[in-house]
Amino acid sequence: MNIAKALAELETLLGQRLTRSKPDLEQHGGSETHFPLAPPDAVAYPETKDEVARILSICAAHGCPVIGWGAGTSLEGQAQAFSGGVCVDFRLMNRVLHVNSDDMDVVVQPGVTREDLNTQLRATGLFFPVDPGANATLGGMAATRASGTTAVRYGTMRDNVLALEVVLSDGRIIRTGTRARKTSAGYDLTALFVGSEGTLGLITELTLRLRGQPEAVTAAVCAFDQIGDAVQTVIETIQMGIGMARIEFVDAATAAAFNAYKGSDLPECPHLMVEFHGSESGVREQAETFGEIAAEHGARGFEWAERPEARTALWTMRHHAHWAILASRPGERAVVTDICVPISRLAEAVEATRADIAASPISGPILGHVGDGNFHCILLFDESDLVQVDAAKTLAARMVERALDMGGTATGEHGIGIGKLDYMQAEHGAAWSVMSALKSALDPAGIMNPGKMVPAPADAIEAGSLPAK
Amino acid sequence: MNIAKALAELETLLGQRLTRSKPDLEQHGGSETHFPLAPPDAVAYPETKDEVARILSICAAHGCPVIGWGAGTSLEGQAQAFSGGVCVDFRLMNRVLHVNSDDMDVVVQPGVTREDLNTQLRATGLFFPVDPGANATLGGMAATRASGTTAVRYGTMRDNVLALEVVLSDGRIIRTGTRARKTSAGYDLTALFVGSEGTLGLITELTLRLRGQPEAVTAAVCAFDQIGDAVQTVIETIQMGIGMARIEFVDAATAAAFNAYKGSDLPECPHLMVEFHGSESGVREQAETFGEIAAEHGARGFEWAERPEARTALWTMRHHAHWAILASRPGERAVVTDICVPISRLAEAVEATRADIAASPISGPILGHVGDGNFHCILLFDESDLVQVDAAKTLAARMVERALDMGGTATGEHGIGIGKLDYMQAEHGAAWSVMSALKSALDPAGIMNPGKMVPAPADAIEAGSLPAK
Repeated sequence: MNIAKALAELETLLGQRLTRSKPDLEQHGGSETHFPLAPPDAVAYPETKDEVARILSICAAHGCPVIGWGAGTSLEGQAQAFSGGVCVDFRLMNRVLHVNSDDMDVVVQPGVTREDLNTQLRATGLFFPVDPGANATLGGMAATRASGTTAVRYGTMRDNVLALEVVLSDGRIIRTGTRARKTSAGYDLTALFVGSEGTLGLITELTLRLRGQPEAVTAAVCAFDQIGDAVQTVIETIQMGIGMARIEFVDAATAAAFNAYKGSDLPECPHLMVEFHGSESGVREQAETFGEIAAEHGARGFEWAERPEARTALWTMRHHAHWAILASRPGERAVVTDICVPISRLAEAVEATRADIAASPISGPILGHVGDGNFHCILLFDESDLVQVDAAKTLAARMVERALDMGGTATGEHGIGIGKLDYMQAEHGAAWSVMSALKSALDPAGIMNPGKMVPAPADAIEAGSLPAK
Repeated sequence: MNIAKALAELETLLGQRLTRSKPDLEQHGGSETHFPLAPPDAVAYPETKDEVARILSICAAHGCPVIGWGAGTSLEGQAQAFSGGVCVDFRLMNRVLHVNSDDMDVVVQPGVTREDLNTQLRATGLFFPVDPGANATLGGMAATRASGTTAVRYGTMRDNVLALEVVLSDGRIIRTGTRARKTSAGYDLTALFVGSEGTLGLITELTLRLRGQPEAVTAAVCAFDQIGDAVQTVIETIQMGIGMARIEFVDAATAAAFNAYKGSDLPECPHLMVEFHGSESGVREQAETFGEIAAEHGARGFEWAERPEARTALWTMRHHAHWAILASRPGERAVVTDICVPISRLAEAVEATRADIAASPISGPILGHVGDGNFHCILLFDESDLVQVDAAKTLAARMVERALDMGGTATGEHGIGIGKLDYMQAEHGAAWSVMSALKSALDPAGIMNPGKMVPAPADAIEAGSLPAK
């Protein structure tokens, strides 16, 4: 490994588009959550796929680590440079290349953000539905298999990426998938790269599915006395086959944090926030059925948001929940949990989590994309208090253990990074070593986002999954 | 490679559940289409995953090829034993293990057929939606990434397999995925094995998504004067966002074949067959909008099938199309094409295909899952007439070339087998060598369904994709 030589060659290639300024390095070494700063040795700003290919060829020749960077909104330290190396920031590759309205798809560069894309699509009557809250880049969203509030209806990035252009660790450029809506032509490489967190290659172009703007949209927020009532409403609505576009849960602590952060006046109790998309009559029918189920479970204070501005206010509030909760405890840090369980176990999982938190010395508002069985707990702790630090870690581990016991997953949408790496063995067992074998096949030198996703080579050899070299 | 030694050990393991009778070998060496008989050396009938693991360990030790077998309904020679070896027939692993009604999922063994599953689900109000026509096994459907008439609404096997248990080439048993509806926990191994056609491992258990039986269903068949009018109706209906559960096209030659095969009295012209699922009012609304679009394009003779028996008759007719067409030319063989194109190019693709066939010396009825942009042409030829054989091959290649030019795929749902292997390089370019690298990583000895999916090792070395050994 010779990072210095790689940087010298990269400087020749990119000129001022390779930076080593301290603020730039620190900005690309931080994260939105609790991980320590881990800056790269340099940040590259390529403008074309061919430049990305050259960057990877140079880094491969010198064994220099390469980490992709979108908007820096990942929550598990996915893009932090724990082994140094070059951070490839895609902000200059931010063009929407082709909108195919008739086929309802779009070709974009990886640095386009989801909000930019939807702004550019506005006149077409189409939109890109995946909405993780943060204004992430589409390259980053694909790399982390992001989802968010609308996955219950429109799916995750897994379901909305049709094709990719990817630069491999040796600088080769490949294309995966086609613009056809389905294919049986070989291994599903698109699905392999979606969610691979930059450990198998760098995405330089994406073909995404679009949806038609619904004819009618309506949204509502309603309050419940008990968490269990709210969650049971969700379960029954899902089981009735009501096609919700979003169904979000927030607990009393989250409602209180909203009120403090935004000056709103939500009752400080559990809430559901729901949205329906469809024809005028379809939306009315769905909303009525949902209202009946919710009322049976004691819902009150229904507020319907028919106008676009009211809906924007509702979902902005939801999207600011993370920040509202952090602001509720100034100076504290957060561990954000992300388990996802089969829907029948959701009430039990949420209640047990709440009981665990109540019995701990820290606070942890609960909120989530409950239509998918996915919820988050934002565990707040004082970094200088080791009892609190330990409590946060223990609670997070306990939640994952429970999710796996219930047939669920350690992470519904935030991904692995380094924050969930310790749970991979428990979740995947021997399949984790299969991931190692795939990683070794596509990145034999281990330069792509090293230290992430798969066991470190020494561990892998111990586990018998990789041949000793 | 020592197949004889492997068979001796397998006989000890399986007793009479390893057969070498000629009829059994021939039955497992044939196919539904035009490939020559290629029987295995033996057929194994395991009863448990542990037996499958033992079979693979034995075959790995002796370099003996292993080919999975479901119902033998694949169309591209996927399960034929061109290198001999052991065919693993899953017919004794045919149990539905757990129906999780509340979570709308089910755990099955690979030998369960889709019709058996739906029969067993009848009392639950749930169903498994993927319907390739043939009564295939669910293991085979996953292995070939099957889809069929309902994919336009419910997706393909890619979208409906939540988790798998797989035995790898060295006998290790792994589990991929969970029962949660989404996950970001690592590489999407489930998607990698779905569609891998037995070249990476053998599927021994599947967790599948189920759907609620729709409250209301209605179906219709309507006639058009011109292919272009029918296809344009489909395109506009898709673009309007009408949620069709099925939308199938058959041309005049297919209608004529139905009439001859079943004694029906369809007008001998192009038809669309369509089905809607939803609430009573939703179905009515969708059907009305479809009817308006179809009428604008000159549709006539609308026949609505409201009663279940009428719908069963309609879809049985569609599912028998393949046999009806074969029966229309007794003694002739068939090449079945399977291209899938972006929907905006569908009319052009169908018309150009029809023109090519009209200018050729053979016949080729056209039919397909046009809501996905996927259509088939059943090219019929007299095997003893070399001009006809050549015409069939040329037409099939021309269709693929056109599909790729249009941004589509060589196979929407039938898979690669050996029938589409020659198109992999054109469709995937350098990505095909990535598939080789993945195959080598998981099956280094090359015993899993050899000769399929990836270039033969010698070709791969020439193409620079695999290190020389």
